[in-house]
Amino acid sequence: MDPTVVDRLTRFETRLQAELRSDVAFIEAIGADLAGAGGKRLRPTLAFLAADLVGADEERSMLVALAVELLHSASLLHDDLIDDADTRRGGVAAFRRYGNVVSVMSGDFMLARVLGLLAQSGSASFTQLMSETAARICEGEVLQFQAATLETHDFETYRNVIEGKTAVLLATALEGPALLASAPEPQREALRRFGMAYGRAFQMQDDRLDLLGDEARLGKPVGGDLREGKATYPVLALFDAGVDEPRALLRRHARQPGDVERVIELVREHGADVRAAEAIAAEARDAIAALEVFPPSPARAALEGLARRELERTV
Amino acid sequence: MDPTVVDRLTRFETRLQAELRSDVAFIEAIGADLAGAGGKRLRPTLAFLAADLVGADEERSMLVALAVELLHSASLLHDDLIDDADTRRGGVAAFRRYGNVVSVMSGDFMLARVLGLLAQSGSASFTQLMSETAARICEGEVLQFQAATLETHDFETYRNVIEGKTAVLLATALEGPALLASAPEPQREALRRFGMAYGRAFQMQDDRLDLLGDEARLGKPVGGDLREGKATYPVLALFDAGVDEPRALLRRHARQPGDVERVIELVREHGADVRAAEAIAAEARDAIAALEVFPPSPARAALEGLARRELERTV
Repeated sequence: MDPTVVDRLTRFETRLQAELRSDVAFIEAIGADLAGAGGKRLRPTLAFLAADLVGADEERSMLVALAVELLHSASLLHDDLIDDADTRRGGVAAFRRYGNVVSVMSGDFMLARVLGLLAQSGSASFTQLMSETAARICEGEVLQFQAATLETHDFETYRNVIEGKTAVLLATALEGPALLASAPEPQREALRRFGMAYGRAFQMQDDRLDLLGDEARLGKPVGGDLREGKATYPVLALFDAGVDEPRALLRRHARQPGDVERVIELVREHGADVRAAEAIAAEARDAIAALEVFPPSPARAALEGLARRELERTV
Repeated sequence: MDPTVVDRLTRFETRLQAELRSDVAFIEAIGADLAGAGGKRLRPTLAFLAADLVGADEERSMLVALAVELLHSASLLHDDLIDDADTRRGGVAAFRRYGNVVSVMSGDFMLARVLGLLAQSGSASFTQLMSETAARICEGEVLQFQAATLETHDFETYRNVIEGKTAVLLATALEGPALLASAPEPQREALRRFGMAYGRAFQMQDDRLDLLGDEARLGKPVGGDLREGKATYPVLALFDAGVDEPRALLRRHARQPGDVERVIELVREHGADVRAAEAIAAEARDAIAALEVFPPSPARAALEGLARRELERTV
């Protein structure tokens, strides 16, 4: 990766640690976990690459990177609780170590810090963008639960879910620096469009691997979504082809041995795996096309590379 | 109450409903619950009274009232989950009806709406104030849990807990209109000081009643805090007087029959009930004194009345 992005990511870690400081020991502990865990820092990377494309200064893109990463971390903490996940990023999920009270409140504490960063940005329009982004993340999460409960399995709902879950925040990480730097409207729109398409490709690939991936590579059993009553792209493509057998499996949360294997078999038999791969490729293509408003540059190439990677990701 | 405040509270309800609108049915349902539940709307009332004292216009104080009430509602939703509370405001706690996912995310959705209101206010300093307020609310909640876990029962921790739980948000409801109307610094500080002192009096009275109140009036058994390992003012006053017997009861969460009665007996025997009442009165007095910077007016009298009510509240 571009060495200047790596440098900025290093400074990002220092700033993140400062944001997570608290006088309350149990909050500090979760913050330290999160700051130490690292992760790919995909969202800050996107903010810095976008800053290069629109010529935003480092401090502005740093505020975006911090606000977006803290919102992401808060939603992971609130997610861990909800999903009853055992582990996240290789460690024990925070809430298991400190209890629900601490994980929900630590997530809220991070959201409070997001407010502070927005105050620092002094930008009502970026604050408004973050408001809409946060609302859509919540709506996506509840919509996923609602769809599983009411069995509303359709492409439109799925698109709303993956946009809320992943795409809107990636788009905001990219659009934020353009907004704060008052970049021309077509550039801002191009970055948002890239983020939404790349985000959909990313989440669709995650969901595809959840069902069709290699268990040894993934380090977890496949079919997790299915067991939680979540219909993702390959399964929706089956319904679309008139194959309704998985509906019953979703309903009883695939508790029978062999259920997941049966769905995988149907998916391959009816070419729903190929349709899912095509849909991912179409999104990646749209993401790359969005960047055509920018002249060639290392930052543009780096973003294109990220979108292209979704075509062949296996883990 | 002042008829103009009542009018503004009516318009507040309409605006609140609009803020809670969502395309996702399960979020709308919780929003409708909350909008319909009404409650005392203490925080909006404080914002409108403060607006009268500093001459802030209705729209500015409305934004404060909405932002503060939504933050309060979000923290109730996240609290219901945490406290495993059966009921809140007379209804079944939202999370029991729709599940954890919906209550945590609906709370987050409200916080997203708070961001939108801050963007509308266009004020970096009010955004910063809300950031600090939200952070202290979380810290107070975690500190209470931490104190119960680590058995750090002292007055300083208790003060921090009740400030986070109640006082900071009341103070922000009052300070917000002064900030948005650029009121003179002494007026802004007076409103904040009133809010903090009144908030401490309010929470200390709630806590006193939790142990020493009348069960028939309260409609719940006394000693709830004690059973959750929370040492409130009367119990801390016992420790301060060298009476350590309740420490053991806090540790085993007062599971033995007669435990709560024993603590109540000790509290009365050692005059810890009187010390608690004195401490509440001192805060109420400080709250009222803070308002002396304002000339007499119906709004000032209304705020004084609220503080005075804490002296004799029984429910």
